Amino acid sequence: MNAEIIAVGTELLLGDILNTNARFLSRELSGLGIDVYYQEVVGDNPDRLKSVIHTAIRRSDIVVLSGGLGPTDDDLTKETVADYFNLPLYFDEQVMAEMTEYLRGRHIVPSNKKQAYIPEGAKIIHNNYGTAPGIIIEQDEKIVIMLPGPPRELEPLFSEQVKPYLDAKSDYIMKSKVLRIFGLGESSAAEKVRDLMESANPTLAPYAKDSEVILRITAKANTDARADKLIDEMYKKVNDRIGEYIYGFDDDEMKAVLCRLLTEKGKTIAAAESCTAGLFSAMIADNPGASAVLNEGIVTYSNEAKEKYLGVLHETLEKYGAVSEQTAREMAEGIKKAAKSDIGVGITGIAGPDGGTPEKPVGLVYVGIAYDGGCEVLKLNLIGTRQKVRYAAVLNAMNAVRKILLNNA
Amino acid sequence: MNAEIIAVGTELLLGDILNTNARFLSRELSGLGIDVYYQEVVGDNPDRLKSVIHTAIRRSDIVVLSGGLGPTDDDLTKETVADYFNLPLYFDEQVMAEMTEYLRGRHIVPSNKKQAYIPEGAKIIHNNYGTAPGIIIEQDEKIVIMLPGPPRELEPLFSEQVKPYLDAKSDYIMKSKVLRIFGLGESSAAEKVRDLMESANPTLAPYAKDSEVILRITAKANTDARADKLIDEMYKKVNDRIGEYIYGFDDDEMKAVLCRLLTEKGKTIAAAESCTAGLFSAMIADNPGASAVLNEGIVTYSNEAKEKYLGVLHETLEKYGAVSEQTAREMAEGIKKAAKSDIGVGITGIAGPDGGTPEKPVGLVYVGIAYDGGCEVLKLNLIGTRQKVRYAAVLNAMNAVRKILLNNA
Repeated sequence: MNAEIIAVGTELLLGDILNTNARFLSRELSGLGIDVYYQEVVGDNPDRLKSVIHTAIRRSDIVVLSGGLGPTDDDLTKETVADYFNLPLYFDEQVMAEMTEYLRGRHIVPSNKKQAYIPEGAKIIHNNYGTAPGIIIEQDEKIVIMLPGPPRELEPLFSEQVKPYLDAKSDYIMKSKVLRIFGLGESSAAEKVRDLMESANPTLAPYAKDSEVILRITAKANTDARADKLIDEMYKKVNDRIGEYIYGFDDDEMKAVLCRLLTEKGKTIAAAESCTAGLFSAMIADNPGASAVLNEGIVTYSNEAKEKYLGVLHETLEKYGAVSEQTAREMAEGIKKAAKSDIGVGITGIAGPDGGTPEKPVGLVYVGIAYDGGCEVLKLNLIGTRQKVRYAAVLNAMNAVRKILLNNA
Repeated sequence: MNAEIIAVGTELLLGDILNTNARFLSRELSGLGIDVYYQEVVGDNPDRLKSVIHTAIRRSDIVVLSGGLGPTDDDLTKETVADYFNLPLYFDEQVMAEMTEYLRGRHIVPSNKKQAYIPEGAKIIHNNYGTAPGIIIEQDEKIVIMLPGPPRELEPLFSEQVKPYLDAKSDYIMKSKVLRIFGLGESSAAEKVRDLMESANPTLAPYAKDSEVILRITAKANTDARADKLIDEMYKKVNDRIGEYIYGFDDDEMKAVLCRLLTEKGKTIAAAESCTAGLFSAMIADNPGASAVLNEGIVTYSNEAKEKYLGVLHETLEKYGAVSEQTAREMAEGIKKAAKSDIGVGITGIAGPDGGTPEKPVGLVYVGIAYDGGCEVLKLNLIGTRQKVRYAAVLNAMNAVRKILLNNA
């Protein structure tokens, strides 16, 4: 089965709010094995609303509408859909009673009554979260589901009533696994798995996200176990080719993966940050429970601070400069010692937009990582804005620490 | 003129990401006096993509597309639009050279070359933020604008190149001024200017953004001078009522306002951060030229680090706890002394999700600010997730430093 999602609301067309309903509904429908082919947003203009709704019902098996069920004359979703199927509206006493109950003690304006009119033969989605009921019309092998626009109403109504309804209609399930990749660009990743991307079931699709690449495996099957098997087979093939670049799965971000690994191994970490100026530590601390692995960190933007807190040698800074392999190494070793941590990270680079030279261009970053077994220094040539360079520097540093932890158990 | 916005991307149909591009483009186009009638999302299926693009070009004056300009075979936006207008694609040497320059030294895979093919006669939107150039086709009284999908590319390309292009096409001008407000919630701000929000030209509209509130004044006029006059009159009225909460204008973020103010006054700043763990320093360093005001900073997550680097008294931590007015004060004074800076900031709080108690709930944050004239401590009760609490703590700290700088010239 395929579906499309229509959000009705002028505030979306003005850019006042984000269309979180489309995202929620897309994710939920995909999870039910229903392919979402289109999303639309349209305002409360009757002609344009009618044209969008008619097109959608003609081309899709399921149409999910959000918004336009309110009490004002502008709210025309229900009327437009009923008109398409030639269904008259009747006044539903029970819906009116529920609405009165919901508005308990509040003034019921005449326009509220409009919300109690229901297309004949429709299934009513009773709403405990607001005044407008949801409505499902099933006719001519089409399903049209209308839900109120506010996410606080739409989301629970979908989960509690629409999902079980659709579940019962579906004859297969869809499952996904996201592979999170670091150190390989989108094009390079796609090059390496191009033939696998031609598979129809499970599918494999890449996309870029900040400084990372995501590969999504999606399987369609009759049973959960069969879907898992399809996913697992594809995962193994991908893993054989680019396994070394896969650092995590699904919603597991690099900072969470690293923090968990440190916790598991009982290791502490501390960073001395020049160009990133605290971002590494702040991202470690994004994880609840970070205090088990992070005690302290130092922002050493100036050379003086690098000498004072980290014991970087004055001669090193004079001879090689603040952005150099030598300085990164001394920063990493210095912070490890100062913080008495198991791992010390030193980050120094040129984030831009100014400060680059032909020998040391913007985007040049050195990352030192000191650990009990030694000290490694990465040389990075990063691209993009100041913010992007700094963010990518932190992700590279985290990935390098992760690898060292895995290899030096 | 009317417009519609098409986002191309399977990840949107799967609900993996929010359609922030549609919101950004809707807001920008509305600001230019262009009515947005439809938004759509479609995946990379060639037939469905074609059907959506053809319908859009037929019914709208301007079609803005985002996404589908990448290097893979799935990326078909450019090819589909060129096909509609019967425009052949040519290989653009300059675009290729720019891409090579952007990818500086990286491996250019064959698929990157695909991005350098341009429909004949098209206007190229050169992209300094990524590899895929934007493209504008103007033909048969239609305008089709194609932009790369990543918001970090789309947003600056639109602002810097598409906006001036569309501005020149319009017979009247729209101008906006954004008032950035801190310390007043969206409803409270709206309450204070409710009558002004009924004005038709210029309009005044509030919206919430992260931990801030934005008020946008938009004027429509025949001349630039007339638009400026309308904006200025409205600004004065708003300023009379809530001027003390306005900290900046347009894209001037709090971190930039503060960094500039410090630079102008020749003051240096250093932060000792517990719950924010480097975020304050990292956000100061987001500003190019931050090295003029920032030399160093310390992340003192553990009590031991607070004593060691900042000289916070052991008794203070024992008696009042790490999250207390007293500790925040000693942290601020300690970092000011250690860093020999003009201003010292100490931030300590409970970011959650765990660690709260009835006396010290999640969201309780103390911010100390030491300066040559004294030391102030703010007590904040913040709401939201761990990340939101930490971000709001930093913004509150920055705003407080800003006020101290303004009052203690």
